[in-house]
Amino acid sequence: MYCVDLNSDLGESFGAYTIGMDSEVIPLISSANVACGFHAGDPTVMGKTVALCKENGVAVGAHPGYPDLQGFGRRNMNVSPSDAKALMTYQVGALDAFCKANGVSMQHVKPHGALYNMAGKDEKLARAVCEGIYEYDPTLILLGLSGSCMLKAAAEIGLPYAAEVFADRAYEDDGSLVARTKPGAMITDEDEAVERVIMMIKEHKVKTISGKVIELCPHSVCVHGDSPKALAFVSKIRAALLHEGIAVKNITEVVKEMN
Amino acid sequence: MYCVDLNSDLGESFGAYTIGMDSEVIPLISSANVACGFHAGDPTVMGKTVALCKENGVAVGAHPGYPDLQGFGRRNMNVSPSDAKALMTYQVGALDAFCKANGVSMQHVKPHGALYNMAGKDEKLARAVCEGIYEYDPTLILLGLSGSCMLKAAAEIGLPYAAEVFADRAYEDDGSLVARTKPGAMITDEDEAVERVIMMIKEHKVKTISGKVIELCPHSVCVHGDSPKALAFVSKIRAALLHEGIAVKNITEVVKEMN
Amino acid sequence: MYCVDLNSDLGESFGAYTIGMDSEVIPLISSANVACGFHAGDPTVMGKTVALCKENGVAVGAHPGYPDLQGFGRRNMNVSPSDAKALMTYQVGALDAFCKANGVSMQHVKPHGALYNMAGKDEKLARAVCEGIYEYDPTLILLGLSGSCMLKAAAEIGLPYAAEVFADRAYEDDGSLVARTKPGAMITDEDEAVERVIMMIKEHKVKTISGKVIELCPHSVCVHGDSPKALAFVSKIRAALLHEGIAVKNITEVVKEMN
Amino acid sequence: MYCVDLNSDLGESFGAYTIGMDSEVIPLISSANVACGFHAGDPTVMGKTVALCKENGVAVGAHPGYPDLQGFGRRNMNVSPSDAKALMTYQVGALDAFCKANGVSMQHVKPHGALYNMAGKDEKLARAVCEGIYEYDPTLILLGLSGSCMLKAAAEIGLPYAAEVFADRAYEDDGSLVARTKPGAMITDEDEAVERVIMMIKEHKVKTISGKVIELCPHSVCVHGDSPKALAFVSKIRAALLHEGIAVKNITEVVKEMN
Repeated sequence: MYCVDLNSDLGESFGAYTIGMDSEVIPLISSANVACGFHAGDPTVMGKTVALCKENGVAVGAHPGYPDLQGFGRRNMNVSPSDAKALMTYQVGALDAFCKANGVSMQHVKPHGALYNMAGKDEKLARAVCEGIYEYDPTLILLGLSGSCMLKAAAEIGLPYAAEVFADRAYEDDGSLVARTKPGAMITDEDEAVERVIMMIKEHKVKTISGKVIELCPHSVCVHGDSPKALAFVSKIRAALLHEGIAVKNITEVVKEMN
Repeated sequence: MYCVDLNSDLGESFGAYTIGMDSEVIPLISSANVACGFHAGDPTVMGKTVALCKENGVAVGAHPGYPDLQGFGRRNMNVSPSDAKALMTYQVGALDAFCKANGVSMQHVKPHGALYNMAGKDEKLARAVCEGIYEYDPTLILLGLSGSCMLKAAAEIGLPYAAEVFADRAYEDDGSLVARTKPGAMITDEDEAVERVIMMIKEHKVKTISGKVIELCPHSVCVHGDSPKALAFVSKIRAALLHEGIAVKNITEVVKEMN
Repeated sequence: MYCVDLNSDLGESFGAYTIGMDSEVIPLISSANVACGFHAGDPTVMGKTVALCKENGVAVGAHPGYPDLQGFGRRNMNVSPSDAKALMTYQVGALDAFCKANGVSMQHVKPHGALYNMAGKDEKLARAVCEGIYEYDPTLILLGLSGSCMLKAAAEIGLPYAAEVFADRAYEDDGSLVARTKPGAMITDEDEAVERVIMMIKEHKVKTISGKVIELCPHSVCVHGDSPKALAFVSKIRAALLHEGIAVKNITEVVKEMN
Repeated sequence: MYCVDLNSDLGESFGAYTIGMDSEVIPLISSANVACGFHAGDPTVMGKTVALCKENGVAVGAHPGYPDLQGFGRRNMNVSPSDAKALMTYQVGALDAFCKANGVSMQHVKPHGALYNMAGKDEKLARAVCEGIYEYDPTLILLGLSGSCMLKAAAEIGLPYAAEVFADRAYEDDGSLVARTKPGAMITDEDEAVERVIMMIKEHKVKTISGKVIELCPHSVCVHGDSPKALAFVSKIRAALLHEGIAVKNITEVVKEMN
């Protein structure tokens, strides 16, 4: 029996500013990455988002990012490993506080944006990110790009981890994502995207931008809920998964079944 | 046998900016209020400050404030009770993360500056502040001004609390502090300040600015470590307390002995 | 010949966050209040907004607020008059930089939200706000609530000023706005709102919430462009004004004609 | 007759946080780079710093940086050229507002920290930085590292510029500064530093870390005022310059005399 997690970035509103259609996407996913106030989100939004996840039985994770609200955490910043470790500890603890206040057990941590990308390729940064999580709670699951430095660093220090794949992004031969600036970076054909996801889950393989077939590990598929079109695509993926006999379960359950 | 806690606000440095002489004052106190990144402090500073407290056997508390770094959390802000509750949860959780990473058990929470003052007088805000702490961890001790709304709110919801007194501030007849803008607000004579503290501890009384004697509850005395002169005064108080047979113990111990 | 200015708050987006339908509302108004990066807006947004105003021949003003992005500048903050003066200078200069870069002459300054309300009632704060503008450029026009402290302060120091009225808000007998928390604060009937505006412009009078008729000075009517419904209402007001023979002109022109 | 400018970074305090000994260093220099609120400084500090410069007859320049207070603007950030241009316009305008309010004419603009370094090597960023200044006021002087991309970009668009040299930093053969992380990056011997500065000014030459002698253009020498030792070194350089018949003049005067 196949299974996979569907994760999405949530709780990205800030004060008077709204981003995302959280109440629509939450019923469609199994794990939520909740922004922690540095690149997006604020304490009030965090509390509401965790409560919404609880109501819908969706597993909650922290989604810590760089302290760059204007750049939405997407701009590379040269943060030292020790500072990066501290900002992980801070944000993970802050989100966990809302989990505790809501009687929810935090499941995972997925770094956001530029921090996700940089720690995916830089061993020292990856190690610092994982240590920040591990020293806070060694049972939390790190969610990172399949094949990335972050997953290796987690394995090395004994932090549980899960591998994330993307339905709508092209892959390089080394398993990294094709940069958004390159042609062909995005899989715009929805049917193709769905087929790719099913192949990833059933065969642990994907065809790269060069045509080569590489292996990857699909614990979780990242989906988006920031527009009606994105929501429709999540529904489509969900339906296709069920049709193929692939159960949608949260990261904890998927890791247990696959390992 | 008399006892009292000495508490001080610490970890107020931010990035390249340094405030306070933390390593000098920590050996002289029994409880530290550590800034949580909103009015002062940053994740890296928080981690270092908690580690320093641990080394010195000083109990750690969170010192959450308004999101106003430029005003150092001292400017009144009209934050709604629900937003105030959320910012308490956030900051308490963030500081607790560094306690956990350092193997330290967080002892207490003392709101900072304008939040301390406003929640000391406003019942709804006081209630929100206490609920933010209680829902996160109902065993944490709220540290607030003796006789203030915050202590009453804590009592009402069942949150442990301790009362704070000031050596260098004059009191109004209702037990509130004389506003800094009024003449006579500060007790500038050090010997007088020491005498007042000893009277508070031994008799639970203080003479107000009008000459009346009122009762108060002295679980903890707030001291400062932001200048060589302030440090010398803390040493002086410490020595006077010991000479009078008053033990310096942390808040947990004092509350246990006095109750 | 009657005339009036229609002003609206614009450029309130921030980084990845969008607020307002600026390109839709700009063609309907005569003066734009552009956020300056403290309560809303960022440098990139400011540049684009000024360029958009220029293209549409809409006069540009600065819309400075408190440094409170999370609260959108709507939370009262106890900022000292000297700090308030400095934050006016800063934000007015920052917006003017984009005006200069776009070859546009800045017309006016309208404080935002809590700063607007507090300076409308506090003489010292009003004075500081006006001095911040005056010392930067004594030809700028302060836009403030008709009858407020701010207009008096401007008059006292020789800063040009214009009076703002609201179509959708009820008035107290003293000319202040009925607090949003009170019943009847908002004029929800669109036809009634339009009638009130026309009476204000033609007779310089408005009926208060108690039924009394008071005088006010209507240089400019504040309109909103943050929803399709708001936009439709602006179109309705515009059409009604033209039908009544009231020309829509910018603040500079209205002040010239009315004085 | 030889002459040179002495410039220093000032106005870096923020709210309750103090950095630098501005009132001590100002009398020793000829041009001040005043922080603009993004990496350091706040509106109140900016006003005071400009007033202090005026009192001492020191020329004022803007010192804009990345929006990274925690990192003091020293962390590389991947800001797009268009966003970088906008943040230049914003900060230059904000500082100029305090110049106007104080009746001072702004002389120059020197980007700070990571922005200075990145724009010194990246042509597109350098161009954006210079355009931000030029479109605001084409008579302002850009102050950048001798031989850097920024000076070339300024020359290309017709923005006046001046070249900065460092007394206490070693140079690579290509004229760039030796990275602080490399051994030998800092010239720690004060007499050697003074000798190097005099050779730069009189011969327009410096010996690089490899022993090669390269040419550079010394309009201005950067000095620091953040410690008593730094201040003493500035006094020493000043005295040595006078002894060698080198006049200390501001950037405007130096550029006029040297060109």
